[in-house]
Amino acid sequence: MSVWPILDEAEMSDAAQAVIADIKATRNTEFINNFWRVLANDPALLARTWSSLKEVMAPGALDPLTKELLYVAVSIANGCEYCIRSHTAAARARGMSEAQLGELLAVVGMASETNRLATGLQVPVDDAFLASGDPAASREGD
Amino acid sequence: MSVWPILDEAEMSDAAQAVIADIKATRNTEFINNFWRVLANDPALLARTWSSLKEVMAPGALDPLTKELLYVAVSIANGCEYCIRSHTAAARARGMSEAQLGELLAVVGMASETNRLATGLQVPVDDAFLASGDPAASREGD
Amino acid sequence: MSVWPILDEAEMSDAAQAVIADIKATRNTEFINNFWRVLANDPALLARTWSSLKEVMAPGALDPLTKELLYVAVSIANGCEYCIRSHTAAARARGMSEAQLGELLAVVGMASETNRLATGLQVPVDDAFLASGDPAASREGD
Amino acid sequence: MSVWPILDEAEMSDAAQAVIADIKATRNTEFINNFWRVLANDPALLARTWSSLKEVMAPGALDPLTKELLYVAVSIANGCEYCIRSHTAAARARGMSEAQLGELLAVVGMASETNRLATGLQVPVDDAFLASGDPAASREGD
Amino acid sequence: MSVWPILDEAEMSDAAQAVIADIKATRNTEFINNFWRVLANDPALLARTWSSLKEVMAPGALDPLTKELLYVAVSIANGCEYCIRSHTAAARARGMSEAQLGELLAVVGMASETNRLATGLQVPVDDAFLASGDPAASREGD
Amino acid sequence: MSVWPILDEAEMSDAAQAVIADIKATRNTEFINNFWRVLANDPALLARTWSSLKEVMAPGALDPLTKELLYVAVSIANGCEYCIRSHTAAARARGMSEAQLGELLAVVGMASETNRLATGLQVPVDDAFLASGDPAASREGD
Repeated sequence: MSVWPILDEAEMSDAAQAVIADIKATRNTEFINNFWRVLANDPALLARTWSSLKEVMAPGALDPLTKELLYVAVSIANGCEYCIRSHTAAARARGMSEAQLGELLAVVGMASETNRLATGLQVPVDDAFLASGDPAASREGD
Repeated sequence: MSVWPILDEAEMSDAAQAVIADIKATRNTEFINNFWRVLANDPALLARTWSSLKEVMAPGALDPLTKELLYVAVSIANGCEYCIRSHTAAARARGMSEAQLGELLAVVGMASETNRLATGLQVPVDDAFLASGDPAASREGD
Repeated sequence: MSVWPILDEAEMSDAAQAVIADIKATRNTEFINNFWRVLANDPALLARTWSSLKEVMAPGALDPLTKELLYVAVSIANGCEYCIRSHTAAARARGMSEAQLGELLAVVGMASETNRLATGLQVPVDDAFLASGDPAASREGD
Repeated sequence: MSVWPILDEAEMSDAAQAVIADIKATRNTEFINNFWRVLANDPALLARTWSSLKEVMAPGALDPLTKELLYVAVSIANGCEYCIRSHTAAARARGMSEAQLGELLAVVGMASETNRLATGLQVPVDDAFLASGDPAASREGD
Repeated sequence: MSVWPILDEAEMSDAAQAVIADIKATRNTEFINNFWRVLANDPALLARTWSSLKEVMAPGALDPLTKELLYVAVSIANGCEYCIRSHTAAARARGMSEAQLGELLAVVGMASETNRLATGLQVPVDDAFLASGDPAASREGD
Repeated sequence: MSVWPILDEAEMSDAAQAVIADIKATRNTEFINNFWRVLANDPALLARTWSSLKEVMAPGALDPLTKELLYVAVSIANGCEYCIRSHTAAARARGMSEAQLGELLAVVGMASETNRLATGLQVPVDDAFLASGDPAASREGD
């Protein structure tokens, strides 16, 4: 049982229902997963979270599948079971193969291992890695 | 100052030098960053870590840039400054634009936010997300 | 099944029973939650943990409800389901409204998002934020 | 040196300057800390992050000081130096005493300790802690 | 249900079966736990993970029980239920008493508490703690 | 600069000085590291933290070196630079060799890698790992 109830749409406030309608339209599905149905108990939190997620996960300089892979990787590092499950499903829906998932897991595991080695040994950052990238410069190049 | 000294190659054991030579050959560079020069104090740890990293980061079902993006994302979630710096540099060297980095950061931030919301609310996983993927099935499809 | 059994009071050592009696007296309840009943397998660990918790959570410069809110927030960041559940219940018992919980979750999520952004971008701390606070100065002001 | 340069306002895009202007107006200050000046390299990320933060940290069911205390606590748990520094400063500016900071630290430390004990012992959640709170019910009570 | 199916040996590829055979021979048991049976869906990941684990956990400068204690402690800090369970079982099989487990938990909890205090207070490292250890020097002493 | 000043003993309250005197006597040294000198700004927090640490790190079912190794491992997993440095120094002072440190790091890295794999794959715990240990039973055996 979740900390807040899992709402059916009929139980939601008008403000929450409007957000749910936008989720359905954007995703072109009638299925609303539990995350949103629980967040709907707090319409302002629901609206802000969905608005941000919709913007962040939209196609851009990175394609939607790459974004889902990153989402899964971070969710593993943060230890969130719900998000691992929901975004693994989303990545599969966007075409992730099981071989790609295997390589994703290998990178997440490897990074976690070397993260701990570098931290445990307190390795100083090489000067060569300290340069700032300049987004404005690349914008000028467009 | 790191927990172990940053070794010059001349200070390394023969076993460590052999690993360093393979890193140079694989990466086609004379530059060896501090992580490896510190690990070289423990030749067995150096050899195993490099061998695994070389295998994991090689091109496969995921391309090398995507793997570097995943590495950066996990390093941020794990809070490893050295790895953030070294793999951001590696991702840029493989063609990551600053716009792509911006979107990567947005996904890492967004995932961390919703990870905490799902955990804080103890949202139960939807049945629809519980299916197992079957790598063997996709292998049979090759 | 927990790593150690959930003990009934009759199964506990005298030392553990004395701690349980103090928990009941302090909280004015007969209900002892599983955390303490499992810790009771190690009476020294039980005694030290309860003694510290009792001191830390007592009213002081921060009121008990604020302390419970902080406890929930940290438990979410650390990913401890048991503690999220038990301290959400404790916060509600001290008067936390569901609207307050919603705002707590929003802050935890937002902080986790900007934590990752600041870490990922390796933003240097502003000089203006580096001043030390001096508790002794404020004590002198009493 | 941060991953992106710390921009002066004159170096920012018009979109970024508009966000910075709103930060100044909302906070009634000319001081813009490095976090925003680095984020300004990605105007969309800057705009979304500020918009969310402004909404989340506004006075509501929790007062602004309590929100800052929660922000500091989460930033400690997540290990973000920048955020610890900036939000400790913000909390002091909103009236946090050093005695309150001491108690905050004590709660963060205590929660982290018991989080690990509960996780290490895999203590099952008590049925008494599983009830869902119902925000709608409390809204009806208004 | 795991993200990949739990395979019986008959369902595994030849490469995976060879790894499983080595696990059985090394551990002198017919019992293969779920971790390996799930990893077997990706034979390369299975082979590399087992090869590394076998090397890392072998007797060396640290005895196998101490290594298992460290494994449990890290798994608690990382919040991995599966690993807490499997390595607590492994530590018990290597002779860990319940009193030792109690002290392990106490250290993990205490370290987590002081980790947060040192991080929250941003305590600078004492010069006395900055010396590098020199593994080569101790090798010369052999 | 730390969040609270690093106090000389002459600047501490009488209560804090008494704790510092006990640290010196227990450790048989005049050296007091920064952690305690910063905590001394909050005498109650100082007293409680020292009292717990003294009890937890005393010889018991685990020897003091093993406890320090566990402390280092947890501090790496939690990402606390100060604690990594101070407890690596403490472990060396208790006889940890650099070869032992290398194996400790290997275990911490390996555990972090498999923690992520098990979490990412959501591997269910084997029934064989679910048995409770019973400290009382082993006490009866004394």
